[in-house]
Amino acid sequence: MYYIGLDIGGMSIKGALFSKNGDILERGTLKTVTNQDYKIFVERLRDLCLDMLKRQKLNQKDLIGVGMAIPGSIDSKRGVITYANNIAFKNVPIVKEFQKHINVPVKIGNDANVAVLGEMHFGSAKNYKDIVFITLGTGIGTGIISGGKLILGKAGAGGEGGHMIIRFNGEPCTCGRKGCWESYGSATALIRQTKEAIDKNPNSILAHIANKEGTVNGKTAFDAEKQGDLVGAKVVKRYLRYVGEGLVNLVNIFRPEIVLIGGGISNEGDSLMRRIQAFVNRYSYGADNKTRVLVKKAELMNDAGIYGCLAMFLEN
Amino acid sequence: MYYIGLDIGGMSIKGALFSKNGDILERGTLKTVTNQDYKIFVERLRDLCLDMLKRQKLNQKDLIGVGMAIPGSIDSKRGVITYANNIAFKNVPIVKEFQKHINVPVKIGNDANVAVLGEMHFGSAKNYKDIVFITLGTGIGTGIISGGKLILGKAGAGGEGGHMIIRFNGEPCTCGRKGCWESYGSATALIRQTKEAIDKNPNSILAHIANKEGTVNGKTAFDAEKQGDLVGAKVVKRYLRYVGEGLVNLVNIFRPEIVLIGGGISNEGDSLMRRIQAFVNRYSYGADNKTRVLVKKAELMNDAGIYGCLAMFLEN
Repeated sequence: MYYIGLDIGGMSIKGALFSKNGDILERGTLKTVTNQDYKIFVERLRDLCLDMLKRQKLNQKDLIGVGMAIPGSIDSKRGVITYANNIAFKNVPIVKEFQKHINVPVKIGNDANVAVLGEMHFGSAKNYKDIVFITLGTGIGTGIISGGKLILGKAGAGGEGGHMIIRFNGEPCTCGRKGCWESYGSATALIRQTKEAIDKNPNSILAHIANKEGTVNGKTAFDAEKQGDLVGAKVVKRYLRYVGEGLVNLVNIFRPEIVLIGGGISNEGDSLMRRIQAFVNRYSYGADNKTRVLVKKAELMNDAGIYGCLAMFLEN
Repeated sequence: MYYIGLDIGGMSIKGALFSKNGDILERGTLKTVTNQDYKIFVERLRDLCLDMLKRQKLNQKDLIGVGMAIPGSIDSKRGVITYANNIAFKNVPIVKEFQKHINVPVKIGNDANVAVLGEMHFGSAKNYKDIVFITLGTGIGTGIISGGKLILGKAGAGGEGGHMIIRFNGEPCTCGRKGCWESYGSATALIRQTKEAIDKNPNSILAHIANKEGTVNGKTAFDAEKQGDLVGAKVVKRYLRYVGEGLVNLVNIFRPEIVLIGGGISNEGDSLMRRIQAFVNRYSYGADNKTRVLVKKAELMNDAGIYGCLAMFLEN
């Protein structure tokens, strides 16, 4: 009795074969090919599944279910990818197509939503029922559980908290609005902010580090700050305020018990969590009367998605 | 077999005696007294209830339940007003206290949350399960239902969508943040924006209307616009963008089926709804692929709260 989880990303597809107890017995990876006919896409998923089963000397009959985490708007009830920009799919009946090959129960969900289920059942948010999960990566992903239930919205299109404007008339966003949180609080935004600071301060430690490494990434400003650089410290301070403002918006709307931070930026670890915690404590609504909202690093990291695929089968 | 609903506002307390079918048989009103001992406050609520019953020749035994809509953070499970700024209550065990006088099941909830339940069961949002309800009044209130369930959050402190910043470093808000939606999109904010425009344009039709009426209210700019005034039209256009930006934030987070607009500003009616609808259509995430989000006026108006009190007894 085994489960398979498939975490479909814009770059790669991660697979895991689970025992009923939630142990990962086998892993597999595929490169994501975009603009592919969805039937071929599904055949490759099938092959990934069969390959993992084979390596454990198992076959299709040993499977209880397959879960898939997919970036985009997912209609879980109908088993359809409504819209997935990254893999260029629109109205793809992926569950039906997959079951032509392997006839088991298949559950699908939006990647951030599936990830928060993973954290709730197996990770940092065990025993919590009101959870805001954000990923600070290429964009800002949000997966939110309120009263033990995922926020799904009409046809699974909810949960786009990254596309909440925090700065009226601000930076243009790919979504067509100006000033989205994602345009200020994502790793991509931090890199842009770091580059701007380097251009203005070519003699700073920040510029020196970037020069030495030959690149600017989400760590550069944090590293400069650790070396006592005021320019780097200013970039980080500003960036964390952007992260904090959007996060407090979500805290005021949902008043979760716990906030989980994931994505590349979360690798800054405890010191980052403490700073975000302090911001949330100070600025969330009714701060003097509030029961505290805990801020924690999402511990499953890159495995939140595949664990979440298994978690979908534990949900009602 | 009757219910009573008590909608406790900052200015007045509205009561209604309901038949089991949801017909209002009797109404009553009290002036809200703030900074009052909560035991006296509850005695006045009791008197209001008994008075309505008496007028229908009924008594306590005919009551099945009493619902209360209260502004602030409400712990419905424990029956406690955690924090209600307007009536200066903190950790008040109102249910227990009320039941000392009238021993029936009592349900309490935050006013905006109760109002959206009223609209879902008796008003504009019948048959919908994903609903965003906003009131554009003194502040901005939000009551949100996702997948048929109210967003309550930890200890009932969720649902403060008005305190979501939409303008980084903007106008100071009473909550301690800068740039909250409420500071731009409430009726109070529109009045401020209208006054600013009048100061800058003392010869405008807008200024003329304000002069004639001797006051500026939430209608002034809309009225000037209707008379062809460009200054008034500009104020309205800007204001509706503020309303729209915050609303689209909520639409992106929740992707409701329907958005209900209540509060004083909603009296502008259909033409206002059409303009907000157009904004939501244009700017919500994945707008070209989306299933439309319907924008509608909240039809129960000032009765949403008392109907919501009854609706609480229809919820699980």
